[in-house]
Amino acid sequence: MDPVEELRAIEEIRQVKYRYLRCVDLKLWDEIGVEFTADATVDYGTMVYGKPLKISGREHIVEFFRTKLGPDIITVHSAGQPEIIVDGGTARGTWSFEDTVIAIEHRVVIKGAAFYRDRYERGEDGHWRIAHTGYVRTYEAMLSLDDLPSFRLTAKPATGGPGADGADVADAAVR
Amino acid sequence: MDPVEELRAIEEIRQVKYRYLRCVDLKLWDEIGVEFTADATVDYGTMVYGKPLKISGREHIVEFFRTKLGPDIITVHSAGQPEIIVDGGTARGTWSFEDTVIAIEHRVVIKGAAFYRDRYERGEDGHWRIAHTGYVRTYEAMLSLDDLPSFRLTAKPATGGPGADGADVADAAVR
Amino acid sequence: MDPVEELRAIEEIRQVKYRYLRCVDLKLWDEIGVEFTADATVDYGTMVYGKPLKISGREHIVEFFRTKLGPDIITVHSAGQPEIIVDGGTARGTWSFEDTVIAIEHRVVIKGAAFYRDRYERGEDGHWRIAHTGYVRTYEAMLSLDDLPSFRLTAKPATGGPGADGADVADAAVR
Repeated sequence: MDPVEELRAIEEIRQVKYRYLRCVDLKLWDEIGVEFTADATVDYGTMVYGKPLKISGREHIVEFFRTKLGPDIITVHSAGQPEIIVDGGTARGTWSFEDTVIAIEHRVVIKGAAFYRDRYERGEDGHWRIAHTGYVRTYEAMLSLDDLPSFRLTAKPATGGPGADGADVADAAVR
Repeated sequence: MDPVEELRAIEEIRQVKYRYLRCVDLKLWDEIGVEFTADATVDYGTMVYGKPLKISGREHIVEFFRTKLGPDIITVHSAGQPEIIVDGGTARGTWSFEDTVIAIEHRVVIKGAAFYRDRYERGEDGHWRIAHTGYVRTYEAMLSLDDLPSFRLTAKPATGGPGADGADVADAAVR
Repeated sequence: MDPVEELRAIEEIRQVKYRYLRCVDLKLWDEIGVEFTADATVDYGTMVYGKPLKISGREHIVEFFRTKLGPDIITVHSAGQPEIIVDGGTARGTWSFEDTVIAIEHRVVIKGAAFYRDRYERGEDGHWRIAHTGYVRTYEAMLSLDDLPSFRLTAKPATGGPGADGADVADAAVR
């Protein structure tokens, strides 16, 4: 494979992954679907729902996010350390991953780490998309905020629903 | 744009951002200024000072860091997931971001996440610099170390002032 | 240096580092050695053993990992922000670094941050390897899980020994 084409493919695939992760944390459900192939599959190794989570099809994946990650749930999904191997119009990628989920009303924090194993495909339009994404946990842990009486949320995103504007929340906290 | 030139610009911009972040955490205030254009602007969405923080001009930015981030403040600023779009001699970049601040004497920890929206410019000397950097919080939270009586700092950087050498601190902690 | 060769070298070095870090967290001790030169040196600024840790030689490095990071120890090593400078067949790299270590039986969590300073060499077979890796801590802190009575590990890797399969652990936790 031409070395410049390979470097470009790696960079394009990285940015697909980064847009996907940003859409999750900013809850951009109308934008996230385009990063997946129509028949994409996901296989998340989280234990939050009691067993690993498998979903097939772009529309079901987006619907899952929209339903599960409402305004009460703050998520931070950080992936790095990409090991991407391009083979023509397909590619595989391994990533490190750490996530933090704060369920505000339930006063629960979930922290974890994992390694993603993804597969990517380049479409007829030249764009790379996620054909499969999945991860296996290094660990996952839960904690109740009741153990941390001083814990105070001083900002959350403006998309977090009524009264959730960062500045307002901070003003309230400072008073 | 030539694909090799574009890939080089993306790599150079990433390294500008990484030097900037490293200078912040290592408190290298004599080195950090060169990463900004003379008229750079910053717009940090932290709520620590009660409202978002806006500063204009390289010298004011460096002075802010020098004044606010003294030896009592440990900071860890981690940015990743760069989505960089180059357009000739200017570029835009979106980054994920997580930070940890430990105010040792106040016994307070601040944790947060955000997405940066930056603008970069290539100078007449060929070097890329930060023309604007700003972020919007996903969340920010504060915690008192009084909730964690077993918490023990076993190392902090040698730049942390008298007696703050990592080895000395660890020796004291182990005894 | 040819710009395409330089970009390729940077990408190859990044992937060497990422494979090394992944092998540490997944405890792949039979795979990790190939990422080091035979006479590689490490100099980790952790204070866990009371003083900084220096080891010489690929075999001693692998043996250290194998001995110290058994199934009771969960580790998450995240490096990012690579500033890599290539000079022919050698290269230097600076990285940000954050790590989390959970010693399950001892009920201790160690968190820290650092900056790596590495040196890489390209072998006669064309592969890049780590010739030296070391880091200086920004901070390191220890915490007993006794301070967090609600803390519950809901998944750990299947390599974690008998009964450590993620699904089983989660099933037990949910009951």
